[in-house]
Amino acid sequence: MKILVTGGAGFIGSHLDDALLRRGHEVAAIDNFILGTIDNVRHNLADDSFKLYHEDILNIGKLEDIFKTEKFDAVFHLAANSDIQRSIEAPSVDYELTFQTTFNVLLCMKKFQVNNILFASSSAIYGESDATLSEDSGPLFPISHYGAAKLASEAFISSFCENYGLKAWIFRFPNVVGERSTHGVIHDFVRRLRINPKTLDVMGDGNQNKPYLYIKDLVDAMLFCWDRSKDKINYFNIGVDTRTRVKTIADIVIRNMGLNPRINFTGGDRGWVGDVPEFTYDLAKLKRLGWTPRHTSDEAVDLAVKAMLL
Amino acid sequence: MKILVTGGAGFIGSHLDDALLRRGHEVAAIDNFILGTIDNVRHNLADDSFKLYHEDILNIGKLEDIFKTEKFDAVFHLAANSDIQRSIEAPSVDYELTFQTTFNVLLCMKKFQVNNILFASSSAIYGESDATLSEDSGPLFPISHYGAAKLASEAFISSFCENYGLKAWIFRFPNVVGERSTHGVIHDFVRRLRINPKTLDVMGDGNQNKPYLYIKDLVDAMLFCWDRSKDKINYFNIGVDTRTRVKTIADIVIRNMGLNPRINFTGGDRGWVGDVPEFTYDLAKLKRLGWTPRHTSDEAVDLAVKAMLL
Repeated sequence: MKILVTGGAGFIGSHLDDALLRRGHEVAAIDNFILGTIDNVRHNLADDSFKLYHEDILNIGKLEDIFKTEKFDAVFHLAANSDIQRSIEAPSVDYELTFQTTFNVLLCMKKFQVNNILFASSSAIYGESDATLSEDSGPLFPISHYGAAKLASEAFISSFCENYGLKAWIFRFPNVVGERSTHGVIHDFVRRLRINPKTLDVMGDGNQNKPYLYIKDLVDAMLFCWDRSKDKINYFNIGVDTRTRVKTIADIVIRNMGLNPRINFTGGDRGWVGDVPEFTYDLAKLKRLGWTPRHTSDEAVDLAVKAMLL
Repeated sequence: MKILVTGGAGFIGSHLDDALLRRGHEVAAIDNFILGTIDNVRHNLADDSFKLYHEDILNIGKLEDIFKTEKFDAVFHLAANSDIQRSIEAPSVDYELTFQTTFNVLLCMKKFQVNNILFASSSAIYGESDATLSEDSGPLFPISHYGAAKLASEAFISSFCENYGLKAWIFRFPNVVGERSTHGVIHDFVRRLRINPKTLDVMGDGNQNKPYLYIKDLVDAMLFCWDRSKDKINYFNIGVDTRTRVKTIADIVIRNMGLNPRINFTGGDRGWVGDVPEFTYDLAKLKRLGWTPRHTSDEAVDLAVKAMLL
């Protein structure tokens, strides 16, 4: 198959390129290199089955040209602004990079009759809830623009499936960590400790407690679901049953760096407005399909820290 | 209060203008006159408390000018493409008119610190479901672009509420009928019978069974909810417990026109792709608040037919 990966030089996209190439597919990666880097895909550049487009898919003319040339069988649409904090004061960032990109991809799929979309959605669509979040949970009131843009994307993916015969695989995942990631709490801690090894500022009270999924587990799960589910709209929570507190992340970073700083909690129950401080994710649907992650949340954090320190 | 009504010369918007003026508010209506008409608001033009802007809110510069001048206390955002069938082959219609309009309104509310949004959402956000649809139902996979654009709008209203301190009232209503409506099944039947009083083509098998809400009941319910609910995000199904089959609508139209045509069903279980042929709407939340509609679904259809034939 010939597969388009939008955001294909990014953190998740580049790992997906690797996995798809290993499976024998042809892969075209599009990236605007805002968060993606050439380093993430350099090892594939000599591979005849890999092609890299440096384009912004907000430019629908360029995107149409690529669809016209390549004749894709499927699209993994990952391109998005994954930096949630950045858009608090600039909601147009998520409107454009996380939502309008999806709409452009859908328009091209309709126009060039590409019928399979695999979409990187997010646990952020569920907003803040005390309940355990299953795929069929409602209501859906996201508290970040990122979550809003992902939900808006799902909404139009759904209407395009109904109206034009597309099939969709929607993957809703929480924080993903590991090699090639670009930002997030692990990065913040390592960066701050490199500047000042004696003190570590931790946003919130350190009790924010979330599941962290290892990147290679995520890619494995996406391909597993694609192989085994064939409904019109296939939608899955992907994650780990375990969770890691922010203060545990601090401990793991400190241990791996061999430091002994004073930890200074800034207080409050969350890192920033729009952050969901704690949630529990129902993975029963994914388990029924037969998938389990290889790494716990703590192990994922540890692997990610080690990768950053390499 | 000074209140902006987007789509304020449209079917629902103009009735809302009337009700808000009766309550003693100042009302500014914005309309692009795609579906709205001057006839809908002519009776208010001499009222000093009423102001009409002929603008398209996709033009955010113009919208900002109006926000800057008027200093609104609240916004009723109704502007949308309400013609669901129209967008099947042109998804950008709903993307722009039903969703991007919402985003522009939210950007202006943020910029000019207007903190109350009342939003015309839709039962279409729920997609097709055998279950009784309550406000907290999930998953949300709309099958029309209209439903997708309304869900996308709700998503960003939610994130704006969280990030900038807005309060929202979200009203999800089904088919609304009555004076000044512009399209829909009643219009289609009347128009066809005026052309050919001997035969009436009915799309589908005539068993599509939906609740029809009378316009004045809808406006009453919106204001009732606004008065009595004060959460950050207040969201309600608005509707009637009763439903009307398409073939009953045909009977009501025929009776009111004094005709006796042969009815020809085109077959299939729905009128068009993206149409939800049958659904049941849970109104318990609205009833708990104390509201009940004055008219049944059949009565609403009858009133709407009589208004069209005046």
